Amino acid sequence: MAKELASLEALRRRINAINHSLLDLLNERARVVQDVREVKTRYAMELFSPSREQEMLEAIVAANRGPFSNEAVRRIFKEVFRASLGLMEEEGRKELLVSRAAGKRDVVVTVRGRTIGLGPVVIAGPCSVEDEVQMETVARAMKRLGVGFLRGGAYKPRTSPYAFQGLGKRGLELLAAVGRKYDLVTVTEVVDTRTAGLVAEYADILQIGSRNMANYELLKEVGATMKPVVLKRGFGATLEEFLQAAEYIAGMGNENIILCERGVRTFARETRFTLDISAVPLLKQMARLKVIVDTSHAAGRRDIIPALSRAALAAGADGVMVEVHPNPNIARSDNQQQLDIPQFEALLEDLRPFLGAADRAAHRPDGLDARG
Amino acid sequence: MAKELASLEALRRRINAINHSLLDLLNERARVVQDVREVKTRYAMELFSPSREQEMLEAIVAANRGPFSNEAVRRIFKEVFRASLGLMEEEGRKELLVSRAAGKRDVVVTVRGRTIGLGPVVIAGPCSVEDEVQMETVARAMKRLGVGFLRGGAYKPRTSPYAFQGLGKRGLELLAAVGRKYDLVTVTEVVDTRTAGLVAEYADILQIGSRNMANYELLKEVGATMKPVVLKRGFGATLEEFLQAAEYIAGMGNENIILCERGVRTFARETRFTLDISAVPLLKQMARLKVIVDTSHAAGRRDIIPALSRAALAAGADGVMVEVHPNPNIARSDNQQQLDIPQFEALLEDLRPFLGAADRAAHRPDGLDARG
Amino acid sequence: MAKELASLEALRRRINAINHSLLDLLNERARVVQDVREVKTRYAMELFSPSREQEMLEAIVAANRGPFSNEAVRRIFKEVFRASLGLMEEEGRKELLVSRAAGKRDVVVTVRGRTIGLGPVVIAGPCSVEDEVQMETVARAMKRLGVGFLRGGAYKPRTSPYAFQGLGKRGLELLAAVGRKYDLVTVTEVVDTRTAGLVAEYADILQIGSRNMANYELLKEVGATMKPVVLKRGFGATLEEFLQAAEYIAGMGNENIILCERGVRTFARETRFTLDISAVPLLKQMARLKVIVDTSHAAGRRDIIPALSRAALAAGADGVMVEVHPNPNIARSDNQQQLDIPQFEALLEDLRPFLGAADRAAHRPDGLDARG
Amino acid sequence: MAKELASLEALRRRINAINHSLLDLLNERARVVQDVREVKTRYAMELFSPSREQEMLEAIVAANRGPFSNEAVRRIFKEVFRASLGLMEEEGRKELLVSRAAGKRDVVVTVRGRTIGLGPVVIAGPCSVEDEVQMETVARAMKRLGVGFLRGGAYKPRTSPYAFQGLGKRGLELLAAVGRKYDLVTVTEVVDTRTAGLVAEYADILQIGSRNMANYELLKEVGATMKPVVLKRGFGATLEEFLQAAEYIAGMGNENIILCERGVRTFARETRFTLDISAVPLLKQMARLKVIVDTSHAAGRRDIIPALSRAALAAGADGVMVEVHPNPNIARSDNQQQLDIPQFEALLEDLRPFLGAADRAAHRPDGLDARG
Repeated sequence: MAKELASLEALRRRINAINHSLLDLLNERARVVQDVREVKTRYAMELFSPSREQEMLEAIVAANRGPFSNEAVRRIFKEVFRASLGLMEEEGRKELLVSRAAGKRDVVVTVRGRTIGLGPVVIAGPCSVEDEVQMETVARAMKRLGVGFLRGGAYKPRTSPYAFQGLGKRGLELLAAVGRKYDLVTVTEVVDTRTAGLVAEYADILQIGSRNMANYELLKEVGATMKPVVLKRGFGATLEEFLQAAEYIAGMGNENIILCERGVRTFARETRFTLDISAVPLLKQMARLKVIVDTSHAAGRRDIIPALSRAALAAGADGVMVEVHPNPNIARSDNQQQLDIPQFEALLEDLRPFLGAADRAAHRPDGLDARG
Repeated sequence: MAKELASLEALRRRINAINHSLLDLLNERARVVQDVREVKTRYAMELFSPSREQEMLEAIVAANRGPFSNEAVRRIFKEVFRASLGLMEEEGRKELLVSRAAGKRDVVVTVRGRTIGLGPVVIAGPCSVEDEVQMETVARAMKRLGVGFLRGGAYKPRTSPYAFQGLGKRGLELLAAVGRKYDLVTVTEVVDTRTAGLVAEYADILQIGSRNMANYELLKEVGATMKPVVLKRGFGATLEEFLQAAEYIAGMGNENIILCERGVRTFARETRFTLDISAVPLLKQMARLKVIVDTSHAAGRRDIIPALSRAALAAGADGVMVEVHPNPNIARSDNQQQLDIPQFEALLEDLRPFLGAADRAAHRPDGLDARG
Repeated sequence: MAKELASLEALRRRINAINHSLLDLLNERARVVQDVREVKTRYAMELFSPSREQEMLEAIVAANRGPFSNEAVRRIFKEVFRASLGLMEEEGRKELLVSRAAGKRDVVVTVRGRTIGLGPVVIAGPCSVEDEVQMETVARAMKRLGVGFLRGGAYKPRTSPYAFQGLGKRGLELLAAVGRKYDLVTVTEVVDTRTAGLVAEYADILQIGSRNMANYELLKEVGATMKPVVLKRGFGATLEEFLQAAEYIAGMGNENIILCERGVRTFARETRFTLDISAVPLLKQMARLKVIVDTSHAAGRRDIIPALSRAALAAGADGVMVEVHPNPNIARSDNQQQLDIPQFEALLEDLRPFLGAADRAAHRPDGLDARG
Repeated sequence: MAKELASLEALRRRINAINHSLLDLLNERARVVQDVREVKTRYAMELFSPSREQEMLEAIVAANRGPFSNEAVRRIFKEVFRASLGLMEEEGRKELLVSRAAGKRDVVVTVRGRTIGLGPVVIAGPCSVEDEVQMETVARAMKRLGVGFLRGGAYKPRTSPYAFQGLGKRGLELLAAVGRKYDLVTVTEVVDTRTAGLVAEYADILQIGSRNMANYELLKEVGATMKPVVLKRGFGATLEEFLQAAEYIAGMGNENIILCERGVRTFARETRFTLDISAVPLLKQMARLKVIVDTSHAAGRRDIIPALSRAALAAGADGVMVEVHPNPNIARSDNQQQLDIPQFEALLEDLRPFLGAADRAAHRPDGLDARG
């Protein structure tokens, strides 16, 4: 058997040599792909061209004489194409201002002495600003509980044109007033390019809602205010699209962006949306922006908000956003998912150890290579 | 089994009787609410009294002995309160203006002598307006082929801020010029409340893209131009949400709305979106608006556009919208899904019998009860 | 104004009286619905009849003379129907053996001295049993690390008929041998009614994979072995369907069922499936079964397994299942998502505080009413 | 722009050249692998050597200088190794037997003188076989209307274990009896490997339901009966997975497979599933199997079945499958979606022109290149 093993050894050496030739050729191909990318980028063409791939594949298979089957050849080249596309996209992404690959530091947002990004935070408040008593009650409770970020909608993008649309400017005033009185950082939604400036005069942080994530004119306008922005993920948007939306804001010179996962639309019936918990570690890996989770909108029901909020923080989120109302039963919007004040207090108690645990996790690498 | 069915029948008769008693009682309550409203209005009192609602709710729940759970009772009465508030504020959700149930006639849109809604139409043209030669080439071909509606984007909402964003005002001018020259009705997208008026000066029909379907401020602004509107379905929107978006436009006094199904986002890998063909008969059943299908965006690949377009017309669509470009390979956007002119000509040939068949189907009832 | 307030008071008393009459009538209706349910259940008919609802709605609206608009009446009665269906389904669910509403104790599974359900556990091991060295290496490491549950597939349901299909009986023997040697509880998948008995001879816990969740004959057969079962959720299944699948097993007299969330199929591109973290609290609320999470299959990539595993335990899961292989790069299946042994060790270290935190959370009620 | 396009063209020529060099090198490697195989086989050595693969991978990665990342290189070479192993084991993934690329003729299924694949057909009948009168009534009507394929379930895979599960063997007998009496080809579902043989004795065509599409043991067993098979797409399955499932049947030597699109699960609320109309042209392009559409299950409601059936045929389907019951209101399953006989008759009338149009379309190429 010695002779056979010797010949086996010789064959293996040949395979090794071929492997290295393949490697050289593959990297030569990769360099040409990089050149293609440069040309395409200059001319703003689509980087991915399935029809071109299809043509190449057909030409290759037509030239194949075996021993590899056409199917095997197709699979190998598809992997080559995938890697090439990865090269294109990876570098495409490398150029996003918000990308982690850009090598710059993580964006920690600081507003009026409070920060998002150095340890998990809680953002709370009613869905809509309704009246002074409501805002007073919530703000006072938050102050007492040590929660520093107050949300509340003055402009409400509602599915039905006949539903309560928010108090508008009067809502902005009420929100700003309690914010000042209790020293809370205020967060409120912007829905129109024409009122972005007005909202920026009153609120500390501007919010882009899920339905407006791909309203690019609004993103640019909000970016231009230079105020910090909470950008919610469109409920039908991929993570790639989400980061590109953030890039519209960053492109205006405003990198004070906080990404907010708030559930995606799936076939689920028991919840209003499906919280995509994987988005938390993935977004943090892809972008250098902080990531919070709106567990109220994801769930659409208040009973599982504690569990989802614990999960968000455990997964590494930089904060959670929850809806709190003095009396959810009579709230003018979203009344199924708002917590009342005792429930909110219980939630905070529930989150206490997780805030700590998430914190530890956030400051220690996972010890795993990305995808490898 | 006969006995069970008989007893089921008896039970159903009892439910029917109770339903009518409930109806009488509800309307009796509504009349008292109207009296309350009269008193309150006379003395300029706040019509909505959250605390009063809360008290009523608590009293009702306290009296509940089941079998309905307290939660169920709460939900039903909240609906009763909502309806009462609607009565009070005279802004209660009426029938949607766009609803078929509203009993008014179907909306046939007529622009410069051409109509959408009396027989299937084809709307065609490039994704983006790129230059004069491109527009000339497409428009001349369309004229020759008898296609009367020319689409082309001057403002392009692109996922990446670094992709081609359209020629803007220059694009509007090019589109309008070829439209006039070849007597084609022009369709182009509006992306910002601030430019809606400008676009309306140049184009015959305004389009709201999928990503802006829930940009309610834009919907209102476009409604206010009184120009016909092609409203595309958000790729993550339910049909209910789609109709509510149309209602924002209709609420401005502008009912010249054409609904456009363009695919929804699912787990599909082989197509860019999943064409929801069921939306065609359902929308036509729910609303009195005409329904077209954008098969190019749904597919994201040109090879299946003929099959999808045939299916759309066979399902009863009032038209199809397809992207046509003189040279798709160098198109500045969507190059995988645009047809070249010979392919477009072949498509029209392919659709000829289906246009006829769909036409016949559209003018004859299905002979089936709705949902029954 | 006193007189007006007096008359307002009188009107309010009338409204209160009507409210109570409505409540009585609603509950009378609810009782008839319960009778309908009894008849339908006896004859195994569908409980929900949309066409019947449609007919009732039409009759009611036809009889409506205002002041409530038809739309308002429709909305109120839809809420009534919804509550009635809730009554039907709630009671339907109440009868599921696995339902929490059944009032029996939670199912804690005990096998060879180890339990699932008294504190979070980790189930680990390779995707496929490949050879003795592989199994020895993994089992020895698990023993050293104090992990008591060893998974490994002998029968592999693979998408492609040409992919590695598992070692079959030889795999069962290898798994059982190392399980005995290192005193680990073994978990392995069953794919055919005809081999269920054989697998039950070798393994401690039987697993039903996602693709077989609705293979009801297999569920019954596995139920009949009386061995504990890990039931994975179908990646396209609702929670309701998932529990009904568990009920097929329970119906054979075998309640030793552990539910396993493993991700659902959505439009996500960055992960293989989308982990539905909300399923954890919801399943625990709906059923009295323990719930674990397979984070490897949900992610399909190893880098986010630590974050997802922390989230699962923080959300209240009774355990996580992860794939571990001595050398994932040469694994015969699922090589993108298996951890190597140092990575697994790091994961355990990472989970340590969360296991504790989840534990605390699991033994304390959330203090929130379900959905209300 | 002309210069950029010219340079792009040059770069593409270089990529093409490199592709061909890669192909040559890969096949050279394959020939060496075949030599290794010969040596190993002669001495009964293990063909697959994981450690050798690992060594090669490490050597290659160590030599990698980019631009391809190590991960990309690893993935490409793993595909090369996989193809090599395929060569070794002579079980390498060849072209799928069902693939259109396999170059063989389309599979036209002929049963008892009737064919599927030469012109659109209609398959109709009740969801479940319930009793003799029901089956007689339907079969007689079908005979009268010239519809040749009768469906009816004897084994019903129901979500709830407490729902009607079918009549079993008695159902098979009833179905076979009316099939003989009225000369109709019968179609019925198989749910268990152990009863596949029994069902094959009674029915002309066996059906695999959506929930069993990935029940690979069942697919193999049904394949082994050599009876024609209607394979329904899993409602969460990609087209690729669907074809792989068909390949399990074809791998048993049985190519008499008819693919059946029946809707996929999405966020849609108005229909039970979402009919994926694009699947029709795509499946016909990918596979050489005939494709039918089950419009009843896709819709889950009877009112849109005519529109969906027209669309299916217009898109090129080889047939539609619809549920027909003499009295849907008392059907023991699926009563919302079954047509009664007059409705079925109206449907056939409605489909008449579309059958013709689809027929014409099916026999004429679309004039468009695949994906290009």
